[in-house]
Amino acid sequence: MSDLPSSEQIEKIIEAIESEQNLDSLQDNLAEMHPVDTARLLESLAPKQRPVVWLGLSDEDRGEVLLEVSDGVRDDLLQNMERRDLVNAVRNLDIDDIADLIPDLPDEVLADVQFSVDKQAKLGLDEVLSYPEDSAGGLMNVDAVAVRGNITMRVVIRYLRLRGELPENTDQLFVVDRRGRLIGSLHVTVLLTAPPNERVGKLMEREPVTFRAMEAQDNVTSAFEKYNLLSAAVVDEQNRLVGRITIDDVVDVIRERADHNLMIRAGLDEEEDMFAPVIRSTRNRALWLGINLITAIIASWVIGQFEDTIERLVALAVLMPIVASMGGNAGTQTLTIVIRGLGLGTISSANAWRVFKKELLVGGLNGLIWALVVACVATLWYQDLGLGLVIAIAMIINLLASAMAGVVIPIMLHRFGVDPALAGGVALTTVTDVVGFFALLSLAALLLL
Amino acid sequence: MSDLPSSEQIEKIIEAIESEQNLDSLQDNLAEMHPVDTARLLESLAPKQRPVVWLGLSDEDRGEVLLEVSDGVRDDLLQNMERRDLVNAVRNLDIDDIADLIPDLPDEVLADVQFSVDKQAKLGLDEVLSYPEDSAGGLMNVDAVAVRGNITMRVVIRYLRLRGELPENTDQLFVVDRRGRLIGSLHVTVLLTAPPNERVGKLMEREPVTFRAMEAQDNVTSAFEKYNLLSAAVVDEQNRLVGRITIDDVVDVIRERADHNLMIRAGLDEEEDMFAPVIRSTRNRALWLGINLITAIIASWVIGQFEDTIERLVALAVLMPIVASMGGNAGTQTLTIVIRGLGLGTISSANAWRVFKKELLVGGLNGLIWALVVACVATLWYQDLGLGLVIAIAMIINLLASAMAGVVIPIMLHRFGVDPALAGGVALTTVTDVVGFFALLSLAALLLL
Repeated sequence: MSDLPSSEQIEKIIEAIESEQNLDSLQDNLAEMHPVDTARLLESLAPKQRPVVWLGLSDEDRGEVLLEVSDGVRDDLLQNMERRDLVNAVRNLDIDDIADLIPDLPDEVLADVQFSVDKQAKLGLDEVLSYPEDSAGGLMNVDAVAVRGNITMRVVIRYLRLRGELPENTDQLFVVDRRGRLIGSLHVTVLLTAPPNERVGKLMEREPVTFRAMEAQDNVTSAFEKYNLLSAAVVDEQNRLVGRITIDDVVDVIRERADHNLMIRAGLDEEEDMFAPVIRSTRNRALWLGINLITAIIASWVIGQFEDTIERLVALAVLMPIVASMGGNAGTQTLTIVIRGLGLGTISSANAWRVFKKELLVGGLNGLIWALVVACVATLWYQDLGLGLVIAIAMIINLLASAMAGVVIPIMLHRFGVDPALAGGVALTTVTDVVGFFALLSLAALLLL
Repeated sequence: MSDLPSSEQIEKIIEAIESEQNLDSLQDNLAEMHPVDTARLLESLAPKQRPVVWLGLSDEDRGEVLLEVSDGVRDDLLQNMERRDLVNAVRNLDIDDIADLIPDLPDEVLADVQFSVDKQAKLGLDEVLSYPEDSAGGLMNVDAVAVRGNITMRVVIRYLRLRGELPENTDQLFVVDRRGRLIGSLHVTVLLTAPPNERVGKLMEREPVTFRAMEAQDNVTSAFEKYNLLSAAVVDEQNRLVGRITIDDVVDVIRERADHNLMIRAGLDEEEDMFAPVIRSTRNRALWLGINLITAIIASWVIGQFEDTIERLVALAVLMPIVASMGGNAGTQTLTIVIRGLGLGTISSANAWRVFKKELLVGGLNGLIWALVVACVATLWYQDLGLGLVIAIAMIINLLASAMAGVVIPIMLHRFGVDPALAGGVALTTVTDVVGFFALLSLAALLLL
């Protein structure tokens, strides 16, 4: 793969733009670049630097780039584009890709796009747009090639020769009856290897994996992975073929989902533009910090109930973050495992109790181990065995609590339809902070003073 | 997709096994289940429950299931299998799949497997095994169909008919010269639509995306995504065709990578078996907790330097977790964005400075906002304007520090070849804890006492 534009090459272009030198060769470089790389380049640039690149792109490349860039950068580009340029960039894309862009397009551009595509494409676009964005119908393209079951392989091949080029990623043709209802599929490899006189109906796969247009995208991605599909038919309520989904779009969904999971764990907007205006980024992240502030104040309030205790034994103030932090870390481990299990479907009500017991045991054991270590540290530090004992008990209590919270919180959130990846971490650390501080301080008040 | 075995079905099986009732119908259910679902079922069961399912599987299903289960469960299954059963399960798999399993197989089984596959397969297996697991060669299969460039479409089709079924996911044939060197590729759709008398050499794609066998898998996955590939040729140093990589294996790599990222952030073993023995899970997680304990002790030590200050103004002990926790959360947001940018290649030395400046601004602004809020809370709580002022300044300092750490730490780790997802979080919270505690307590010592 010596052809892949290396990241060094992109780095050089960025350097040229940063220093505003050697911009002459930029045009040539851009023409050779793959839209995916151009999208990465645009994401690497500050908004005010992007026009240098953007203006150097052809209409076709612009359309592809709009599909590839992150949401934040796309908004930035769309806002600064002439309406006519925008229509030119979008109208030559595949129907499913236009449908993906449409939620972000200004209304008047949308009308122009629908006006400028041909009639066939307009029908297809209407079809795709009639389904929710995250359904199988929203993901499909309308380029499925259909044949009838009663013709021979020879006739199919003759038809394909007349038709010319096949749509990208065509691994199978779909077999329909007179009313357009799906009755099977015919792999192109079968077409190549089967006797020319055999009929389609005899050699077709009779029950290909098929999606209803309203099917959730999660089911589509897991079926593609499970059955190693390259494409699959999408049918409407009457089982009529309305389109097909191809693996490249499924890969995009998988990638976006993984990205989404990583981002929301830190309370970030799904696709924050790395160089969005400072004000916008600040606002995007402030909400999350505000939520965390509330939980931090709750924990502080718990400490506040023990001011007298701390005044009389200031070592507690020194040691209390250790108990809270160990609980937070152990709890996050449990939480991660449970969220993953819920996502994969390996945790359900049938075995949740078993998960709970196991995590409690692991939490208790790790609590014991680290309680011993921390007890030694505290005893040596403050020459106070009682203090060592108290912090050890608090540690065990908090690691047990963190195990329980790590199992119960995500399962409850999941049951109430809240994504546990989003809210699970905050809820968990609130519990481990509160329990950690309370256990240590109340035990100390009870036993040491 | 009414055919997909629903999670409820799996739940019912788990319930049956848990209650040890209705086990009669288990056998029938298992025979109908897809290996992916069987793998999920096994992962949902405790080790001692797994034999009920495992013993009910055919040799073929067992091989597929071994491929699909997580590493932890696979180890468990392999350890409890008869050597002969193991050989039977493995030997009928695809060459690339056997190669994937081999690192986990006991040595004597490996010899038996190599002995029991046919000579052709053994050669292929040796070829795949000669490359590192995470290289293109380690990912490839050896089932590429090759044709010569000087023959016509008609001859190719006749050859394919004689050959019979094509390997799964065959979207292109590879064109080689007399010495087996790759000179192009021929899409099966071209074969279907081109005139029968045209020669392969004329219609083939002359520069198909191709990987050297030693190419890193990351480059393979990004090229598959970028170019929407279904398959690609793998060649050796002499440009001879040695195999091909198909999209289904690439999807597996993408999925595993995403999973890996989520797990190591919490310091978890990549594929911890949810029901592994308690002792093993405890040990797996203890190391991470130990590392965190060290960082917690460092933060405590900083607090310890200010015992006098806290004794005189115990409100500091109450408020200090707020400053530390806000820094940790803001820093994690920056860290997540920078790790993502490093992974995508949108952050490089060319624009790192710009990222740094922006994050510093966002951190400073959010510091200002939340410093104001916290100052009000603290002033009202303790009726002490001085205290409110001190915590406000400490908050701004810590959010600036968290922004710097969130940019610098992952970039440094990345440069030294350490995965920032693994160590970044711990390093960051150490910084934000230390800076948070130190800023608040030292300012208080200086200004309030």
